[in-house]
Amino acid sequence: MAKKIVIVGGVAGGASTAARLRRLDETAEIILLEKGAAISYANCGLPYYIGGTISEREELFLQTPAGMKRRFRIDVRVRHEVLQIDPARRELSVRDHQAERTYSERYDELVLSPGSAPFIPPIPGTGLPQVFTLRNIPDTDRIKEYLAAHPVESALVVGGGFIGLEMAENLAHTAKRVTLLELADQVLANLDYEMAAPVQQELRDQGIELLLGHGLAAIEQAGPRLAATLRDGTKLVADIVILAVGVRPETRLAEAAGLALGSTGAIRVNERLQTSDPHIYAVGDAVEVREWISSRPAWLPLAGPANRQGRLLADILAGREARYPGAQGTAIVKVFDLSAASTGLNEKTLRQWGIPYRSSITHSNSHAGYYPGATPLSIKLLFAPEDGRLLGAQAVGAAGVDKRIDILATAIRFEKTVYDLTDLELAYAPPFSSAKDPVNIAGYTASNILDGAVAVATWEQVAGEPAGSGEPLLLDVREPVEFQLGAIPGAVNLPLDQLRERLAELPQDRPIVAYCQVGLRAYLAARILMQHGFTGVQNLSGGYKTLRAALQ
Amino acid sequence: MAKKIVIVGGVAGGASTAARLRRLDETAEIILLEKGAAISYANCGLPYYIGGTISEREELFLQTPAGMKRRFRIDVRVRHEVLQIDPARRELSVRDHQAERTYSERYDELVLSPGSAPFIPPIPGTGLPQVFTLRNIPDTDRIKEYLAAHPVESALVVGGGFIGLEMAENLAHTAKRVTLLELADQVLANLDYEMAAPVQQELRDQGIELLLGHGLAAIEQAGPRLAATLRDGTKLVADIVILAVGVRPETRLAEAAGLALGSTGAIRVNERLQTSDPHIYAVGDAVEVREWISSRPAWLPLAGPANRQGRLLADILAGREARYPGAQGTAIVKVFDLSAASTGLNEKTLRQWGIPYRSSITHSNSHAGYYPGATPLSIKLLFAPEDGRLLGAQAVGAAGVDKRIDILATAIRFEKTVYDLTDLELAYAPPFSSAKDPVNIAGYTASNILDGAVAVATWEQVAGEPAGSGEPLLLDVREPVEFQLGAIPGAVNLPLDQLRERLAELPQDRPIVAYCQVGLRAYLAARILMQHGFTGVQNLSGGYKTLRAALQ
Ligand SMILES: Cc1cc2nc3c(=O)[nH]c(=O)nc-3n(C[C@H](O)[C@H](O)[C@H](O)COP(=O)(O)OP(=O)(O)OC[C@H]3O[C@@H](n4cnc5c(N)ncnc54)[C@H](O)[C@@H]3O)c2cc1C
Ligand SMILES: Cc1cc2nc3c(=O)[nH]c(=O)nc-3n(C[C@H](O)[C@H](O)[C@H](O)COP(=O)(O)OP(=O)(O)OC[C@H]3O[C@@H](n4cnc5c(N)ncnc54)[C@H](O)[C@@H]3O)c2cc1C
Ligand SMILES: CC(C)(COP(=O)(O)OP(=O)(O)OC[C@H]1O[C@@H](n2cnc3c(N)ncnc32)[C@H](O)[C@@H]1OP(=O)(O)O)[C@@H](O)C(=O)NCCC(=O)NCCS
Ligand SMILES: CC(C)(COP(=O)(O)OP(=O)(O)OC[C@H]1O[C@@H](n2cnc3c(N)ncnc32)[C@H](O)[C@@H]1OP(=O)(O)O)[C@@H](O)C(=O)NCCC(=O)NCCS
Repeated sequence: MAKKIVIVGGVAGGASTAARLRRLDETAEIILLEKGAAISYANCGLPYYIGGTISEREELFLQTPAGMKRRFRIDVRVRHEVLQIDPARRELSVRDHQAERTYSERYDELVLSPGSAPFIPPIPGTGLPQVFTLRNIPDTDRIKEYLAAHPVESALVVGGGFIGLEMAENLAHTAKRVTLLELADQVLANLDYEMAAPVQQELRDQGIELLLGHGLAAIEQAGPRLAATLRDGTKLVADIVILAVGVRPETRLAEAAGLALGSTGAIRVNERLQTSDPHIYAVGDAVEVREWISSRPAWLPLAGPANRQGRLLADILAGREARYPGAQGTAIVKVFDLSAASTGLNEKTLRQWGIPYRSSITHSNSHAGYYPGATPLSIKLLFAPEDGRLLGAQAVGAAGVDKRIDILATAIRFEKTVYDLTDLELAYAPPFSSAKDPVNIAGYTASNILDGAVAVATWEQVAGEPAGSGEPLLLDVREPVEFQLGAIPGAVNLPLDQLRERLAELPQDRPIVAYCQVGLRAYLAARILMQHGFTGVQNLSGGYKTLRAALQ
Repeated sequence: MAKKIVIVGGVAGGASTAARLRRLDETAEIILLEKGAAISYANCGLPYYIGGTISEREELFLQTPAGMKRRFRIDVRVRHEVLQIDPARRELSVRDHQAERTYSERYDELVLSPGSAPFIPPIPGTGLPQVFTLRNIPDTDRIKEYLAAHPVESALVVGGGFIGLEMAENLAHTAKRVTLLELADQVLANLDYEMAAPVQQELRDQGIELLLGHGLAAIEQAGPRLAATLRDGTKLVADIVILAVGVRPETRLAEAAGLALGSTGAIRVNERLQTSDPHIYAVGDAVEVREWISSRPAWLPLAGPANRQGRLLADILAGREARYPGAQGTAIVKVFDLSAASTGLNEKTLRQWGIPYRSSITHSNSHAGYYPGATPLSIKLLFAPEDGRLLGAQAVGAAGVDKRIDILATAIRFEKTVYDLTDLELAYAPPFSSAKDPVNIAGYTASNILDGAVAVATWEQVAGEPAGSGEPLLLDVREPVEFQLGAIPGAVNLPLDQLRERLAELPQDRPIVAYCQVGLRAYLAARILMQHGFTGVQNLSGGYKTLRAALQ
């Protein structure tokens, strides 16, 4: 007898499981239960449809219920919501919202891919009609219709994560004033502070009013508009509020059925994506995964892993040997003309988890500087102090960010080191890269730190140190014209190319932090100083560029 | 006493060795001998300067002799040509073209990075003043001046490799007619035929007259113009001829000094980049390397490896443990609006070397199809039949080609398999990729072939097979409207979504080659057929798209 597999949730994880399972098994009975009216939609495109970049609503649907039935012979039931699971009887209670009836459905194996739900902060006013969250098609239609029907002068976006930033950018196409409110002192929690700084600058340059370190306390109706009160009492007026303060795993069904949740609050699954009930599997945003670097439980709600898990689960259900090894949280976001991306762990998390690490920051051109159109690109690497194993990477820039983070994500997946990055043979012609790609340069710089070829100071260390005597000498090795345009207070200017002749001017008994614009010239300076008997020489990692961005 | 290191050649390999060596060792005596007037120039930018994309000549110089002296305290001697090496006495004979004198220079260690030289075909007329090759700054100046001083209606570029294609594109900015002549039946020998086909189409679409399978027999003066005679007797008239029929390693010095050459004709070096003389090292275009996949000797004259070897050699000369493990030949070229790239071995080479392989071709969007601006991207993978180890990869498309080839180059460097590609967690947001990146899809498709989930037919097999009875049935599973717009002669149309209902129409006793536009629907069709008892079912790899491009 063919197995009966019931899948809850018809988008990234659920539809992927269904499609692959049918390819592997023509005879399985596959039922797909989706509480919404649509399946297989592009959640990730929703902000761009709202902003008009994606102009046709139908573009958002990668597959329709009818198409899925025809092509995959899957019993797709939309507007069918699973209300309850009875694991002992292997039975579901299902509400058919169309027919307005509730029925029960048996399963041999159950797949949960219910996704996640926007977190609604427990403050007054979130239920007002001009306050929205964005997760699915109905949310999208609501926002889109509201924008079409009402004059929207000003918009308030609460939350500086991926969706918040995408919504801020897309609302800026319509609204005259967009304010982005973020409780933390930076946007994009996946990045470290100094890597988020250029993104913040871009938001401001593009006219977004950015309020960092501000929490929302209440929203209330103010005539036809809304008044938002911040925790410090500030009041903002807006025509629309988008709440994008994070999502939570959709665990209601699982909890009620007694399935074990993990320490992150998401559903716990083993390497075979099996929950604590052997006949119930789960994938996607609803599950906790093993973080790739640390092997710790983590919650990484992203579309790539959801699709991957969905396909793997089909293999498992079809009886194949397959294991899900974990996720590394590779993510990217476009913010106006910048892209920002990360993979693996960031410095904040490494510190919090007590994992030892070293870091490097480099600035390169997106492609050969002599070929038109090259733009600056910053890469931060985090790596193990003993052997240089990559622990995480971040990249920010106008172009080529996705390429570099994908190369680094690949190296991390294969458990490689910063030394391995120096050996990568990447494609070079002037429109695409340099003979030493920015990833190679990042690898070189990190290996020099590990090898002791140069010691580095971070921008935090330098920013925290008053440049008095006894304290390290801040040595600016840029050209005088650069120095005059802005330098670290207290720094002494001695251009790199005069260094060897003017060594006598420098104190032998005081630590020196050399810096330049991006870190390259100061590295050369440090090498010269170290070989001329100066001890305690450090290079400011990422140079003045990183320091200035972080302090702005 | 400090060591005296003499370097011959002041560009990619030579200057890189010098700079890194100084960083490692402030006391070494480093002499850089360069026969031209410039060092550290961007060879790779020369075609773009000729075409005007790079507008300033000084952009081409990454470093000047004076700058190199100042910054690195290197004794840079330009217009100094090494005429001879006396390995026994560790002495060079050097011609100072400026002072017009010849002197001898001793070395402790000698580094050769003399590069390569354009091959001049042994035919009449290559010495005519309107006939040029392109390797260095003087060549560039000559071409640029010629173009400025003479009306150039039509240009003939001989050779369809990287430089030939770049020159054809850049000359098209000036000349009304550009003809590209190539002896082989395809451009870009690094690609397989069907992957080169879209590049050829692009050249034609952009107005380049492409003559494949044509050799040049002679060039002669025809009034103020040139007449080129092809091997088949055809005559072409042109105002300028660029010879770009390949380069040869610059081995004159090495040979005369009795250094061993490898089987490729380039200088043989060991893993420590040492020639057969223990005090003479060599890097860059002049040396033979170990090909990464096969461990065979190979000649891969590219800027990335030259820079890498130069830096490694400095480490070696400074007494560090370092080894050059070989090169994989990652390369990319922009051809008008297309990019074409490759890494590792191609099918032609694998066949020639008798290395067993399987292949897959997939077509994806450069980023999510629902986000504007996505363009088609084709990926070919070559992999080992036993374990799926990646042997080579090729990619062609308008955007995102460099990213995908770099991810694949990274996987190849780490000796990974097609299965590993399915596990890669790459950065996804709609402007950058899809939830399953094209590299993941290529990995899935290749693993399905290896796992026996589907058998594939190549376009060569299908193109070679008359579709009579007894021969396989060609089953076109696209929609009728697609079929009508063009299909394989003799094929039968049965759309995928009707397949299950119409199985009875298909012969059980005849092999079936299913095909669709790109290979996805026919894969689904094959899975259905295989599970309904049809044997000998194959999917046309790369679909009608690849077949049509190859046959055009
Ligand atoms: C605006 C937005 C932008 C995003 N952008 C990106 C991006 O750029 N990159 C990225 O990697 N990720 C992005 N994501 C996240 C990505 O969409 C999710 O990680 C992915 O969709 C998770 O897949 P899933 O199958 O777990 O859940 P979903 O795709 O959300 O599907 C869950 C489905 O289950 C249904 N369901 C829930 N409970 C029940 C029930 N009881 N009965 C029946 N049906 C039920 C829901 O209606 C829903 O349709 C974005 C998400 C949003 C909302
Ligand atoms: C037009 C063009 C475009 C290119 N595009 C690309 C590209 O897009 N991507 C890529 O990877 N590669 C490209 N290359 C190839 C790349 O430039 C080479 O691989 C690289 O420069 C090799 O470095 P090298 O140090 O071995 O030789 P070179 O960089 O060529 O330097 C050799 C130097 O040695 C000097 N020399 C030779 N003999 C003597 C002597 N006896 N005494 C003193 N000096 C001597 C020469 O004058 C020359 O300056 C391109 C090359 C050209 C010509
Ligand atoms: C639409 C949807 C149901 C399609 O699922 P799918 O059929 O597994 O995925 P695709 O259409 O990408 O096809 C991939 C399959 O085709 C195969 N394939 C792709 N191109 C191929 C080619 N040229 N030749 C042969 N096979 C090919 C792949 O190997 C894969 O098959 P496999 O899993 O059996 O190995 C599913 O992706 C979905 O619902 N997505 C929802 C959108 C989403 O992910 N939202 C969140 C992010 S916005
Ligand atoms: C110009 C030239 C001499 C420079 O050589 P170089 O100094 O080794 O190279 P770069 O300027 O890229 O600097 C790289 C060094 O700076 C370091 N670096 C780069 N950015 C850094 C940063 N932000 N912080 C610290 N160090 C940094 C790297 O680690 C590397 O040092 P290392 O080799 O000791 O590890 C050499 O590249 C050259 O001549 N090129 C010729 C052009 C060419 O390659 N032509 C063919 C292709 S067109």
